[in-house]
Amino acid sequence: MTAVKPGQPAHHGWSEDPVDLRTDSLSLMKELSRPSPSRIVLLVVDGIGGLPLVGTGRTELETARTPHLDALAAGGVCGLADPVAPGITPGSAPGHIALFGFDPLTSDIGRGVLEAVGIDFDLLPGDVAARGNFCTVDGAGTVTDRRAGRISTEECTELCRLLDGLTLSGATVVVRPVREHRFVAVFRGEGLVAGVTESDPQQVGLAPVAISALSPAAEKMAEVARQFVARAGEVLADRHPANMVLLRGFSRRPHFETMTEVYKLKPAAIAGYPMYRGLARLVGMETLETGATVADQFSALKRHYADFDFFFVHVKGTDSAGEDGDFDRKVKVLEEVDEALPELTALRPDVVVVTGDHSTPALLKAHSWHPVPVLLSSPQCRPDGVNEFSERACIMGGLGRIRATQVMPLAMAHALKLAKYGA
Amino acid sequence: MTAVKPGQPAHHGWSEDPVDLRTDSLSLMKELSRPSPSRIVLLVVDGIGGLPLVGTGRTELETARTPHLDALAAGGVCGLADPVAPGITPGSAPGHIALFGFDPLTSDIGRGVLEAVGIDFDLLPGDVAARGNFCTVDGAGTVTDRRAGRISTEECTELCRLLDGLTLSGATVVVRPVREHRFVAVFRGEGLVAGVTESDPQQVGLAPVAISALSPAAEKMAEVARQFVARAGEVLADRHPANMVLLRGFSRRPHFETMTEVYKLKPAAIAGYPMYRGLARLVGMETLETGATVADQFSALKRHYADFDFFFVHVKGTDSAGEDGDFDRKVKVLEEVDEALPELTALRPDVVVVTGDHSTPALLKAHSWHPVPVLLSSPQCRPDGVNEFSERACIMGGLGRIRATQVMPLAMAHALKLAKYGA
Repeated sequence: MTAVKPGQPAHHGWSEDPVDLRTDSLSLMKELSRPSPSRIVLLVVDGIGGLPLVGTGRTELETARTPHLDALAAGGVCGLADPVAPGITPGSAPGHIALFGFDPLTSDIGRGVLEAVGIDFDLLPGDVAARGNFCTVDGAGTVTDRRAGRISTEECTELCRLLDGLTLSGATVVVRPVREHRFVAVFRGEGLVAGVTESDPQQVGLAPVAISALSPAAEKMAEVARQFVARAGEVLADRHPANMVLLRGFSRRPHFETMTEVYKLKPAAIAGYPMYRGLARLVGMETLETGATVADQFSALKRHYADFDFFFVHVKGTDSAGEDGDFDRKVKVLEEVDEALPELTALRPDVVVVTGDHSTPALLKAHSWHPVPVLLSSPQCRPDGVNEFSERACIMGGLGRIRATQVMPLAMAHALKLAKYGA
Repeated sequence: MTAVKPGQPAHHGWSEDPVDLRTDSLSLMKELSRPSPSRIVLLVVDGIGGLPLVGTGRTELETARTPHLDALAAGGVCGLADPVAPGITPGSAPGHIALFGFDPLTSDIGRGVLEAVGIDFDLLPGDVAARGNFCTVDGAGTVTDRRAGRISTEECTELCRLLDGLTLSGATVVVRPVREHRFVAVFRGEGLVAGVTESDPQQVGLAPVAISALSPAAEKMAEVARQFVARAGEVLADRHPANMVLLRGFSRRPHFETMTEVYKLKPAAIAGYPMYRGLARLVGMETLETGATVADQFSALKRHYADFDFFFVHVKGTDSAGEDGDFDRKVKVLEEVDEALPELTALRPDVVVVTGDHSTPALLKAHSWHPVPVLLSSPQCRPDGVNEFSERACIMGGLGRIRATQVMPLAMAHALKLAKYGA
């Protein structure tokens, strides 16, 4: 949920209301943003930030040969961004939502919703999505394998067909496969709210937990979910090892204002992975077809350059390599980005931002809390003496240490898309 | 409006209320500030921040020869301030209000109010001020010139006399000339609130827009304003080209606590331009007579140095040169400030702050969002290795990147005017 409440006026300089509503950057953006022909490219290199390799003392970004990024840094302004807050390790959803300018602390995207947008499933307002596992239970109903031996995606797809379309107490359940044992269950109907407990006992040797409502308003959702679990048990009885389901992360699609409403932009996303396309669609971006490589993505950017004024380009390989603990592969993906960069800069966007949604140091094999390097290039930059794009160089950058939510206001300002605030 | 609501206790450490009231720096200042003989001089060099000139790569401040400012920086502590927030370009009012320590996002100063304070007009609480234009309408009532051919200020003054003092539905209208076709209309009477639409159609070929209330509470204001416009049409009928008026920016004087209430200071303003004197009076400063040059202003400071413990000195020339796109003139004004500086420092104020209300790069010919260099000099500074006062040097300053609202708490601290917080 955004901090701007529905029905709140975008311009209220005349308001006699003693409570001023212009207290967050989104409402400020709504008030000050102006459409213009200038173009912004936000290049998100997923998990870009790293930690130094013992021996060289250099991070992935400091190890990679990146002459084009360094040149962009030399002419631009750099800094470090905290996606959520210092010390907080963000998931992919808050990391991206913050870069789009929405407060990740008040914009909760549940696991069920993320799983649904991750398979390009279009959630309707009011839908409650849950993340499902097929699992194995024994004769006593005790879970013996929470992942049903990681059945194949084909098997998962077939089982989902058996469960899809059930009608329970007036609600419909849409069931879609994700991968291996994972699926999404979307509960659609009147009066469903997300506040129910999960059925996954989180360890083997226990029975699935009965789903219960966390508030009286959620009683119907709890009842429908319990019925779904019971019916799934019947339908799957002879499908060992996938003879039961576990449900987690019941959640509703949060309401975001669109980037068009907030920034008056016509925004597009160029992302190879469905989850990032899904996140982009949550804030109103159009998603464009693209091939798998960075060069493919930049080609897609070139192809559609005339049709939009904001492009979110998502590079996944850096994060995957970081998660795998593969320092050298992360370096290689960074070099691949750098090599392809001239195709992007040749378009002469008014503003180019290069940053990440979080750090993923190969050393940690996981997302981390370390701040993320940010590079902003535009003819309106005040240069800062940083002539290299690296974690260490960015400490000295003119942007200082910012919140990731400030990246969009800064990009909008440098694209000359913001009116002056106040008389 | 300040963030501290009337009736809110200044000290509330014992409160059982779960809502913490000490959420803004103003209430902290009220709680911790102590009167003392130490003196603070806040030198606001309007629009001080700039952008580099192509060719030299140096900003106005980096180009200017400023040995005295550089020496002050070497012995002091520097940083960069965002007047409102990163990416936001401030008007003069929010830029100054922030430097005085008041949150510019919750302190809305409307255009009408700013126009009124800009001609030294003392608004009373409850007054609604609007910014007026004399304009030309044809026989059908269509606006043919929104500025009435920019009539002379003398003509404007004469026409204002014709409209001044009208009584409409129990409200009095005070009309004062500003310059050329511009005037201020102040509506004074019971039950007037500012929430009404504007009559200026913003383009020729349209009739003035009928003023209407934005809420039921504003019906009376709308009625009085409509009557004023109708009467103005009658009175001015034969004064072509100035045969009608357009009204914009209806606003009420916002309530600010005074700097004496917040900081226990006795504050004075030395500003050549009425708007800045007006802004200073809004927060309770006394305004002192001064000549036009920086040297004149510093002489006024010297003359009144014994009578106050806080001085806001406003230098306008830098902003005007920036707005005109005149890089060299801005450099020259900066050098003029530097040359006069010894007269200020000879007074040995306990704290000297040199900063701006916003950046006005000559390159952009306008206010901009770029952060503003800040220099704080005091015997209590922790020096930071910065020995030059420039945008780039300030990146490395010990103050880091701060909000402009933090300048006053820092000045108060270095003047040893703040008690310890907490046991």
